[in-house]
Amino acid sequence: MPFSARTAKEVHVIRRPDGPLSVDDFVIAERALPDLAPGEFLIANRYLSIDPVRRVFFAHGTAPLNGGLHSFAIGEVVESRHPDYAPGEIVGHYQGLRDLAVGRGEETRKIAAGEDPLEWHMGPLGVGGFFAYVGLIEVARARPGENVLVSSAAGSVGSLAVQLARLIGCRVVATAATDKLAWLRATAGVETVIDYKDADWRERLGAALPDGLDVYFDNVGGAQLDAALSLINPHGRVAVCGMVSAYDRATPFSEPAGAWTWRMMTSQVELKSYHVRDHQRLWPVFQRSVGDWLHSGAIRVETQVRDGLEAVPQAFVDLIAGKSLGKTVVRLS
Amino acid sequence: MPFSARTAKEVHVIRRPDGPLSVDDFVIAERALPDLAPGEFLIANRYLSIDPVRRVFFAHGTAPLNGGLHSFAIGEVVESRHPDYAPGEIVGHYQGLRDLAVGRGEETRKIAAGEDPLEWHMGPLGVGGFFAYVGLIEVARARPGENVLVSSAAGSVGSLAVQLARLIGCRVVATAATDKLAWLRATAGVETVIDYKDADWRERLGAALPDGLDVYFDNVGGAQLDAALSLINPHGRVAVCGMVSAYDRATPFSEPAGAWTWRMMTSQVELKSYHVRDHQRLWPVFQRSVGDWLHSGAIRVETQVRDGLEAVPQAFVDLIAGKSLGKTVVRLS
Repeated sequence: MPFSARTAKEVHVIRRPDGPLSVDDFVIAERALPDLAPGEFLIANRYLSIDPVRRVFFAHGTAPLNGGLHSFAIGEVVESRHPDYAPGEIVGHYQGLRDLAVGRGEETRKIAAGEDPLEWHMGPLGVGGFFAYVGLIEVARARPGENVLVSSAAGSVGSLAVQLARLIGCRVVATAATDKLAWLRATAGVETVIDYKDADWRERLGAALPDGLDVYFDNVGGAQLDAALSLINPHGRVAVCGMVSAYDRATPFSEPAGAWTWRMMTSQVELKSYHVRDHQRLWPVFQRSVGDWLHSGAIRVETQVRDGLEAVPQAFVDLIAGKSLGKTVVRLS
Repeated sequence: MPFSARTAKEVHVIRRPDGPLSVDDFVIAERALPDLAPGEFLIANRYLSIDPVRRVFFAHGTAPLNGGLHSFAIGEVVESRHPDYAPGEIVGHYQGLRDLAVGRGEETRKIAAGEDPLEWHMGPLGVGGFFAYVGLIEVARARPGENVLVSSAAGSVGSLAVQLARLIGCRVVATAATDKLAWLRATAGVETVIDYKDADWRERLGAALPDGLDVYFDNVGGAQLDAALSLINPHGRVAVCGMVSAYDRATPFSEPAGAWTWRMMTSQVELKSYHVRDHQRLWPVFQRSVGDWLHSGAIRVETQVRDGLEAVPQAFVDLIAGKSLGKTVVRLS
């Protein structure tokens, strides 16, 4: 029966997390979907993106309580009253954290996955991968021979940033938690990795960069941003992509993260935040370059796959706690 | 007698200032100049530039104790063994804070002052003016209709920055000390001026910028940089030109000045320091534009002229204490 009403299951936040995120901050709710109107199509989600930055929206009010959440997902069009979207097409969109979604074509991208594993389009060929590409290449303008530091380097964005920097010809230093250092060395090919949980991580970072830092790709903020700025060379560039050190705090919005000092004032330094929506013209070359590198094995990525909508809350908790290597996704059957 | 030995008088720093700068930190010393060697020329300085940032070099070791100081000056070539510099030519150079200097053509620019007052080439058409032009137009990319804040707006650089912003078509807000607000309103044509010595300056600044800040031209650092960052709009740009709030402190190099927060992380904001030496291609258009505006009266500037090398120490003390309007120079007869 085409265009019929259905029931969707959604992940809702039922209270503002206060302190570390808990699975009890979430419920799975059911919602009756109305019949498709002209211009709408029904998407059966296949993969949901679990992104640490959502923690801030859950806690601080831009995500609704007891309502549907904005988040990236990939799904298959199963019914359509939209002339440009036919059943069977695969689309990326932001009606995530639910099993069935109603699309209208806004903020929606068709995905021609071909032979690619669909997971790649959640990670290295998706929004997170594009943040790594744009941040390193367009915002920070990393060049061959430069010293590049990437923090949270074993995460979804960081693990691509370190490999892109290596492929550009940079000298790469990475920070990550203890259990991910081996992967960064052996699989991502990062020469120098530093455990940010070591008491003397800051001294180690300085020792690893005796001739300073040209580019810092920041996923963390806070003390690591501060340390990076203290090592920055003249004409150094900092691309600020994330601030995971602040996400689980009570007041992330005013968390100081790195002081601008005389050293920076006299060093022709750039510190920039950015969003990939301002750099869409790079999307095709990003897809081609990173796609080729993935197929050739020059870039290798990890995906943590969890199954079923019920797995979403624990996936967020584990990701924010720093327990996940690479990209975390939830797969729906 | 050509190429003859002479005695130069120089301003020396005799001790590292510790706390507020004092005239007792300086002496006037005499130094015998050797005969001119081939490739050298003798410059009789006419105007010496008094720049607040020198305070940091005096205190923290990059300026020698009991030796000649690096500083901008304009003088007349009086003898020459250099093929490109003839007696009578006017040159800008960095062998300042002395009456007679030996030039070799490095870091030297010939000045075709024509009908211009020579003081203009110390201020709005000199290095300070070029810092204002490059910072506002090239680094911060101020555009018509944008909200621009300039701190230390009645100083040498700031007083040009506010007028350039007004001429571009920006809405200009300026901060300065009490006794300079009237000049900024009446002569520089700044609509909204805020006294940074008022207890509630920060609230006033917020109230003056109800729709936020697109560009901040920073001469001050510290609390004013912090306040500006808290008001910055998405895609806002900050050009960091100076940090006068830190110059008279014991530890300017590590003085925190403005915290990078979540708000900035999510706002596609740029914070940049710069040096005009990286933007020399703009020098001719800067000379032409600002020269035209000065001649037409569209830009108006103040110069505080003090006479005689002996006036240099007090000129520095007064400038750092915030007592001077516009550009401070010392004139030698």
